[in-house]
Amino acid sequence: MNSAATQIRVVLIRPTHPGNVGAAARALKNMGLERLYVVAPAAFPHVEATARAAGAEDLLAGAVLSPDLDAALAECHYVLGTSARPRHIGWPMLEPAEAGTRLVDESRRGPVALLFGQERSGLTNAELDRCHALVQIPANPAYPSLNLAAAVQVLAYEIRRALGLPEQPRSEESEAPPASANEMEHFYRHLEEVLVDTGFLDPANPRLLMRRLRRLFNRARPDQNEMAILRGILSAVQRVTRKS
Amino acid sequence: MNSAATQIRVVLIRPTHPGNVGAAARALKNMGLERLYVVAPAAFPHVEATARAAGAEDLLAGAVLSPDLDAALAECHYVLGTSARPRHIGWPMLEPAEAGTRLVDESRRGPVALLFGQERSGLTNAELDRCHALVQIPANPAYPSLNLAAAVQVLAYEIRRALGLPEQPRSEESEAPPASANEMEHFYRHLEEVLVDTGFLDPANPRLLMRRLRRLFNRARPDQNEMAILRGILSAVQRVTRKS
Repeated sequence: MNSAATQIRVVLIRPTHPGNVGAAARALKNMGLERLYVVAPAAFPHVEATARAAGAEDLLAGAVLSPDLDAALAECHYVLGTSARPRHIGWPMLEPAEAGTRLVDESRRGPVALLFGQERSGLTNAELDRCHALVQIPANPAYPSLNLAAAVQVLAYEIRRALGLPEQPRSEESEAPPASANEMEHFYRHLEEVLVDTGFLDPANPRLLMRRLRRLFNRARPDQNEMAILRGILSAVQRVTRKS
Repeated sequence: MNSAATQIRVVLIRPTHPGNVGAAARALKNMGLERLYVVAPAAFPHVEATARAAGAEDLLAGAVLSPDLDAALAECHYVLGTSARPRHIGWPMLEPAEAGTRLVDESRRGPVALLFGQERSGLTNAELDRCHALVQIPANPAYPSLNLAAAVQVLAYEIRRALGLPEQPRSEESEAPPASANEMEHFYRHLEEVLVDTGFLDPANPRLLMRRLRRLFNRARPDQNEMAILRGILSAVQRVTRKS
């Protein structure tokens, strides 16, 4: 993580809307990245950038403001460009997931860069010329151009996935152990008794009722606490039916 | 594609910032989705929403404005919630890629919903109670909360990716269509009545009983035949309790 966080530079080239710069900073911090470069922005720093950074002001304040792309790419040994167009003859095209893997991989050998062009026009030919490969986010062909910060978010997400970080603690589906097969059988017998008591199940003509209920409750896989609740409900019903 | 585009509802609950609603609309259109639901927004329609939609004004104009979550979820047979917190006991937790596959898969059987809570607070307990599973976007533990539209973007991206995957063979678990969100709500109300009638549930001290039962039955995902059986059982019990 440390290596990728400090070696992967996300470079926004001539961004028009300062809000996008702030939102990109937030996306990077959310995904555990740290290095934002801003090349020749229309307006930056800017109050809108700060507002949209919302908690990532530190990352925004540490952004490297660069007059040209050369300065932002100095020391980088691998440069990946983003493109909304389906093909650029001469560049390998990567899927976002491949791009994440590749950037993480290359970042182990030194600084790498991921370039985002201007909102409307994308990367210029001169900027494309700096790239080793291009990545395209799959999109609706009728409306393929993502918001700049949204594109940063998707690729930062793929970088984080590629890092294969230890996951955040996974939720256990349930705190109690699952009901055992025995407990399930006791439950089904109890349920059947109650269904007969209430008149819902006719023992002379049971049809497939119990089988269907078994399928339903087996799918739910009750844990032991839930089983205690279910048994409690059955007993409460029986207290009424057997009294009446 | 068509099925997912029209059957997957993205539901923003009580969004505070209209800009996020517009940006979410753009993210959906970029990813080829079409159905945006907005529940009890702070301000919508709004000039900021329109500005951020930037080319997705059609999708924004077609957004369904709903006073409450019930109306937005009616007919949905599968509901997935988003969470920035790592664990919620009792719900299966999905990775974003799994969530995309699951939503696409379930969308082939009817409408499904992906819920996003309010920007600051996320989903409330009552909203979580409507969910069959939760999805968490892996994030920096020190700063895990993504911007609302950024989270919509990541999950819409995973849905689009999943659409490109071969269809999952359906299990034969159930031949009948799944119970809808509305039918589940009627069932829970009926169940609660019966539990009160039998004395198992004390309305003055309900504790977490209904929540636990919701989780159990949401996991089981009853189909419409099973739902008819469950409702029949409840009615049979009521005939006894109300007679006695």
